Amino acid sequence: MSRIAYVNGQYVRHADAAVHVEDRGYQFADGVYEVCEIWQGRIVDMTRHLDRLDRSLGELRIGWPMTRAAVEFVVRQVVRRNKVRNGLVYIQVTRGVSRRDHFFPPEDVAPSIVVTARSTSPEAASAQAAQGIAVVSYPENRWPRVDIKTVALLPNVLAKQNAKEHGGKEAWYVDTTGFVTEGGSTNAWIVTKEGTLVTRPAESGILRGITRAVVLELIEKEGLTFEERPFSLQEAFEAKEAFVTAATSIVMPVVRVDDRMIGNGHPGSVATRLRDLFHTATDFQMV
Amino acid sequence: MSRIAYVNGQYVRHADAAVHVEDRGYQFADGVYEVCEIWQGRIVDMTRHLDRLDRSLGELRIGWPMTRAAVEFVVRQVVRRNKVRNGLVYIQVTRGVSRRDHFFPPEDVAPSIVVTARSTSPEAASAQAAQGIAVVSYPENRWPRVDIKTVALLPNVLAKQNAKEHGGKEAWYVDTTGFVTEGGSTNAWIVTKEGTLVTRPAESGILRGITRAVVLELIEKEGLTFEERPFSLQEAFEAKEAFVTAATSIVMPVVRVDDRMIGNGHPGSVATRLRDLFHTATDFQMV
Repeated sequence: MSRIAYVNGQYVRHADAAVHVEDRGYQFADGVYEVCEIWQGRIVDMTRHLDRLDRSLGELRIGWPMTRAAVEFVVRQVVRRNKVRNGLVYIQVTRGVSRRDHFFPPEDVAPSIVVTARSTSPEAASAQAAQGIAVVSYPENRWPRVDIKTVALLPNVLAKQNAKEHGGKEAWYVDTTGFVTEGGSTNAWIVTKEGTLVTRPAESGILRGITRAVVLELIEKEGLTFEERPFSLQEAFEAKEAFVTAATSIVMPVVRVDDRMIGNGHPGSVATRLRDLFHTATDFQMV
Repeated sequence: MSRIAYVNGQYVRHADAAVHVEDRGYQFADGVYEVCEIWQGRIVDMTRHLDRLDRSLGELRIGWPMTRAAVEFVVRQVVRRNKVRNGLVYIQVTRGVSRRDHFFPPEDVAPSIVVTARSTSPEAASAQAAQGIAVVSYPENRWPRVDIKTVALLPNVLAKQNAKEHGGKEAWYVDTTGFVTEGGSTNAWIVTKEGTLVTRPAESGILRGITRAVVLELIEKEGLTFEERPFSLQEAFEAKEAFVTAATSIVMPVVRVDDRMIGNGHPGSVATRLRDLFHTATDFQMV
């Protein structure tokens, strides 16, 4: 079966899915995106993801390319046409195609939308989670508007590539005061020696993660001890557990930060339990 | 005549010029670009622009999509096929097309290249220069690697759009210590009351402009007084003249910064003279 993508009104073969070279996403990174998990044939938390898309678009004053209901329909269609039972659906909206000029284009230029989907292996993800990942710290060097989920991801690409070249799967940004902000494409968490879960407030220098929000609800439901505050890299080194959250990895245990083993070097019980419980706390939309 | 663009090995109608939705330029802003002026049928300073492209690619570890000689050939071809005598040629290179993943793609993924050209009106530019432009200050909020000419231009888009909405044609970034770094797509200059030209050193927080470099040579040739040092917004307010430089605007006088008139509110003699002399100092390549 060949993959299908949706591009500006048409379902096309993935191999043929193209945008104009003067799409502002290509020339200016003038666009935003969302990634939703597909789990057992269901779209996880689409409502929250589209709420965040709406906010991102609003912050950049990009209009919806079509009604939100139409976007939801297309997302379902793309998942269905690609027969994805477990995987990801990707939605990108840009300010549209216009002759190259930094200024916003004329009002009649329509935003562009691209939706793609692909299958992933739950078994591979589980195997990875059973082993845990290493993260590599990186000096925070992104612009301050990381609360907007833009496609201007080059800094994240470089931070994550650096992590990979140092044996890690994720980068942890560290600000000038020594505090971890977030991962290159995840939110960052620790569990202190006293068993307290800690993650940085969404108001300061991070993206308001959807998976993060679900985990916060789980923590409350489970009655776990929790503090929403910045934590330092040093505190992470000394933590009992660490993990990252994102739609692409759900809850992924971290067993090493730079050259320091976290806890006993194996995935922690809190992270593992939150991962196991995760889908009990999410909303679903049937495909 | 329909416009022609070059995209990854083919000359195509501009309207059909497209890249894959998983081109890393579209999903990650993982690419760089150059813009050269076309002046009287000649390509201005292509050597310096391709030198800078080489540096940008090197900093991001993106390979050349083809030999530099082949890129030069294509640039000439695109200018010729579009019959541009006065205008701009745009070159964009990205890390290529690969399944979406922040990490660099496998080694065998070829970089993408797009070359477009378009005519501009020298008369309109001269009229604008005779009038001068207003610039609007904006808090510096870009990542520190602005020395690399990447397509991650969303911050620049927002700063320039803000300028436009406040009656300006350009934004001037101001750092936390009150010093002007550069424009949204230009380098920034002033002439002090004493007649000294001032521009920020290329080593600190700005792009090493090609037009800026040519103007530096002109200044030396003309024996003008010059200081390469940061200047503050306050100093700009009190300057005798101000101007910006870029391949897209050459030397463009600035007659207002925020709500402050610069000098007598008309283009200054130094800026005007540098603009007039500009093409005596550039290198050319015949199309």
